[in-house]
Amino acid sequence: MNNSDGSKNYSLVYRKELRKIESRIAKLFLKRKPGSLYEPCSYVISSGGKRLRPFLVLISAKAVNGSFSKVYNAALAVELLHNFTLVHDDIMDNSDKRRGRLTAHKKYDVNTAILAGDNLIALAYEMLLKDCDDNSKNVVSTFTRAVIEVCEGQSLDKDFELRKSVGIKEYKEMIYKKTAALAEMCCSIGAQLGGGNNTEIKALENFGKNLGMAFQIQDDLLDITADEKKLGKPVGGDLLEGKKTYLFLRALEKSKGNDKKLLQAVIKNKGIKKEEIKIYKDLYERLNILTDAKKEIIHYTDSAIKELNKLPNEEGKALLNWLANSLIDRNK
Amino acid sequence: MNNSDGSKNYSLVYRKELRKIESRIAKLFLKRKPGSLYEPCSYVISSGGKRLRPFLVLISAKAVNGSFSKVYNAALAVELLHNFTLVHDDIMDNSDKRRGRLTAHKKYDVNTAILAGDNLIALAYEMLLKDCDDNSKNVVSTFTRAVIEVCEGQSLDKDFELRKSVGIKEYKEMIYKKTAALAEMCCSIGAQLGGGNNTEIKALENFGKNLGMAFQIQDDLLDITADEKKLGKPVGGDLLEGKKTYLFLRALEKSKGNDKKLLQAVIKNKGIKKEEIKIYKDLYERLNILTDAKKEIIHYTDSAIKELNKLPNEEGKALLNWLANSLIDRNK
Repeated sequence: MNNSDGSKNYSLVYRKELRKIESRIAKLFLKRKPGSLYEPCSYVISSGGKRLRPFLVLISAKAVNGSFSKVYNAALAVELLHNFTLVHDDIMDNSDKRRGRLTAHKKYDVNTAILAGDNLIALAYEMLLKDCDDNSKNVVSTFTRAVIEVCEGQSLDKDFELRKSVGIKEYKEMIYKKTAALAEMCCSIGAQLGGGNNTEIKALENFGKNLGMAFQIQDDLLDITADEKKLGKPVGGDLLEGKKTYLFLRALEKSKGNDKKLLQAVIKNKGIKKEEIKIYKDLYERLNILTDAKKEIIHYTDSAIKELNKLPNEEGKALLNWLANSLIDRNK
Repeated sequence: MNNSDGSKNYSLVYRKELRKIESRIAKLFLKRKPGSLYEPCSYVISSGGKRLRPFLVLISAKAVNGSFSKVYNAALAVELLHNFTLVHDDIMDNSDKRRGRLTAHKKYDVNTAILAGDNLIALAYEMLLKDCDDNSKNVVSTFTRAVIEVCEGQSLDKDFELRKSVGIKEYKEMIYKKTAALAEMCCSIGAQLGGGNNTEIKALENFGKNLGMAFQIQDDLLDITADEKKLGKPVGGDLLEGKKTYLFLRALEKSKGNDKKLLQAVIKNKGIKKEEIKIYKDLYERLNILTDAKKEIIHYTDSAIKELNKLPNEEGKALLNWLANSLIDRNK
């Protein structure tokens, strides 16, 4: 870790832990029956992805002087929980593909995907409890609050689809619940199980919450600024689907006259055509929306990083700091 | 309780607690938002029903000298969990009605019903934790195991629909997971939170498990023997839908020649016509299937009641005994 190029080493730690997480995930349900339930559960959780949430649990534990080994099961638990949200969200959004593969309800059927998601919630609790002891009431309570927030966030997101306008404040409340609350929970249970005191737990919760907010707005931004090959999906996809993202709502807020009408047409027509993407990208640039989004991302990332001063373990803090900065620089 | 007609008093206790449970359920989500999530959750849990599972939690606590007041939240938790299974099962079975009302996915839509069910699981954990303390790891673990069993049982049940034959042993494993495991859990957490020792907890788990088995076979039997008006649904409904119930599988096991062909036709045609119900009822009677089912119900009920000897509290035991006998005598 005392290498002159620290960031390279942090990335190595991440990749090493990622491999361990993948190997543990691959073994999770090998002995469980019936296959009609566990085969779809395995399919869902072995779809890859960044595994950021379990990594957050690990390095949060480290940041309060806990060891990774104390929270491996909890780390898998948050990944199981995250995958429950994906499989049920994909049904609700009627998505055919995720990470280049068929979604569970397309590969199997809707009933199988509903049940696999339900089981993943329970399996997440089962996994979490393995790392719990005297602290189990608070840890399970923190975990449960996040599940409720995610459901509330998903419900708000569905509500927003039907509305003509949504304020930035409401949008932030929704992404807090749908995305940031889970990151906050990951950091909190890492800190609790790692043996952190209340100040440290609170600092890590704030770190996770702010990181989650930055992550989601970055996701909205990447949809329009990313390289299509790296993103793995069409640039401007959110506009095509008429999604009310940060960029879109901020533009709606700032625009006037014909610009506003252009944006309102996206809502009215439930999306735009592929050849119109450039018009909207130009509009976003004219209204300085991409800059606004970048400012928000930096604001939330800075707020996250500020919390690290309250933590005792240098390596853990450095890993959290590296992760926060890597997420700003990501291209997918 | 020392009244000459004890059973009347036990029924009064049940009805009194039922009213309290209903009143608590009615208030559960009044202050929670968004309405798009909590309105459907309220709709699902306010559909009435016997509320047997919360009552089991209460009287199990009493049977180990605990008080009802120690487990009121846990009692609501198991009812929330039960209702999660109902709302998702209704989607999977494509059922239009439950207890005379539209099912949630028919009143709202499938997405809303999926999300309401998901949230009910988390709300169940939230409620359960309110009654937990040092014992929370074991209690939450018992609760979680039941959620997994229910998912596994539902998956087996779906598997059975596609099979030509299912043995009675496999059928019993399925109803254990789908129905009895939840009753076992209700008794277990009542006993744990009520302060029972390991022997008492185990006795109550066995009570719940056996009661659950009796309850499910009784359900299968009532489908063909009940009074249509009291049952609230058509007599022979399981045959109309081609369901592999205890009665059907036992008949398949015992039958030969033309009788067997008649039963196999039910599977092949995925059900029978209304005018054929009498043929199958006569066949069941000729093969002594109704008697076999009654024997099984009595066997499981006796096994449940035997466990009560191991418990310390007379009133609690009497209530459990009364409940077990009432379930045998029920007509719906």
